[in-house]
Amino acid sequence: MFVIKIGGSRGINMDYVVDDAARLFQQGEKIILVHGAGNEANELGEKLGYPAKHVTSPQGFSWRYTDRQTLEIFTMAAVGKLNTFLVESLQKRGVNAIGLSGVSGRVMEGARKDAVRIVEGGKQRILRDDYTGRVEKVNADLLCTLLDLKYLPVIAPLAISYQSEAMNVDGDRAAAMIAGAVHADKLIILTNVVGLMRNFPDESSLITHIDKNKLEASIDFAEGRMKKKVLGASEALGLGVPQVVFADGRVKHPIQNALDGKGTVIG
Amino acid sequence: MFVIKIGGSRGINMDYVVDDAARLFQQGEKIILVHGAGNEANELGEKLGYPAKHVTSPQGFSWRYTDRQTLEIFTMAAVGKLNTFLVESLQKRGVNAIGLSGVSGRVMEGARKDAVRIVEGGKQRILRDDYTGRVEKVNADLLCTLLDLKYLPVIAPLAISYQSEAMNVDGDRAAAMIAGAVHADKLIILTNVVGLMRNFPDESSLITHIDKNKLEASIDFAEGRMKKKVLGASEALGLGVPQVVFADGRVKHPIQNALDGKGTVIG
Repeated sequence: MFVIKIGGSRGINMDYVVDDAARLFQQGEKIILVHGAGNEANELGEKLGYPAKHVTSPQGFSWRYTDRQTLEIFTMAAVGKLNTFLVESLQKRGVNAIGLSGVSGRVMEGARKDAVRIVEGGKQRILRDDYTGRVEKVNADLLCTLLDLKYLPVIAPLAISYQSEAMNVDGDRAAAMIAGAVHADKLIILTNVVGLMRNFPDESSLITHIDKNKLEASIDFAEGRMKKKVLGASEALGLGVPQVVFADGRVKHPIQNALDGKGTVIG
Repeated sequence: MFVIKIGGSRGINMDYVVDDAARLFQQGEKIILVHGAGNEANELGEKLGYPAKHVTSPQGFSWRYTDRQTLEIFTMAAVGKLNTFLVESLQKRGVNAIGLSGVSGRVMEGARKDAVRIVEGGKQRILRDDYTGRVEKVNADLLCTLLDLKYLPVIAPLAISYQSEAMNVDGDRAAAMIAGAVHADKLIILTNVVGLMRNFPDESSLITHIDKNKLEASIDFAEGRMKKKVLGASEALGLGVPQVVFADGRVKHPIQNALDGKGTVIG
């Protein structure tokens, strides 16, 4: 069984991803797709006159500030548009896909950051209306039931808090939690780059293999969004997933390439 | 088992509906909710500078003209916003709801009106880019599996065509098809009026009971949106659903009221 995370940034060729996922699924492979929505949510926010705003913790972590209005925009982009049309794409290829966000059936559950310290203009303040959080529990029973019935779950990066509030979560780390919960053989993280590079963006510096015990040291090479992917990889390995692959989602056969060991293989 | 349709127009009190649905579900009743999205989709279309446009057939039927961009807007409003937050509302009341559109798992399937005649400025022309259709098949197996596992399905009014295109469908008639497919005991259609009135909008002219064999004659009393609800009722009865109730969704205990026979009871 594979969990495949499709990045939410520009550049990934969704047709190639869906072609490959459909082919593997029809060969009998169990697959769960998890997708991001960052770029789509940014564009919708711009159009609606409520652009995305990022905030930074005193520790230097940054994320999309998600007040209730941003949550609505994120949900419309992630669940309404991307998830529905990804499911439609798979259906067109004969795959009976089911779209879910983590809110449905409590597929992904966790703690909301309901009071979180941020740095703004050099000063610290507490944010209380932020609907982001971290996935801590996965409803593996529901996902496995759907897989056994020959459905392909397609999951949008929202979770539900312990107080039952919808919240925005990081897609890479969500995919890692799902991979761990369903005992996936591999977690494949498709991005708009060739993999983890020693000297970003020099593709010839691609790191082709990382020993799972040495992953922490690799975080130094990770630029921007890649840091959360390394964190996700580390969490998946910690939950017993044997292998994580960072692979190029811009080219044909992106999933097959990952299975063939192209990209950065961690394990 | 009940199928409950929640209208997409202004005025329905969603908190009252969700309170009642949660209470009945927790008492062990199997429930499927189907919702509309008309008003929400209209508002989003306005905000995005792409307002809804309605077209009319030579026979006088009118519907939302749904080109691909309108389909995106409809999906964002229906699946992204309304469906997700309805599921969240149920989760807050301790009900494990699952949001689905008819695209997921081919829950609702049917023929797309891919070439349809309309009247515009007195002239007829053929519309070829309209993504609307009619539900003809329901994946009752999936819905019943979810109900047996104690989930409450919440369904957005999109279906998938036989060519696997997402399409906008009428929520009332979709709810009727679902009620028939799962052998529901009742179909409850919640609206922003007291029920079917002999002299709309005079509430004292409420028709409290209609014999199922005399429903066709009642369509003459139905104004605007109510015509499709009467059509839905007729289809549900034709599929063997013993009773359909049109009930007021603006007041407390709207579902219990319907079960107690308040509104227009057809059967």
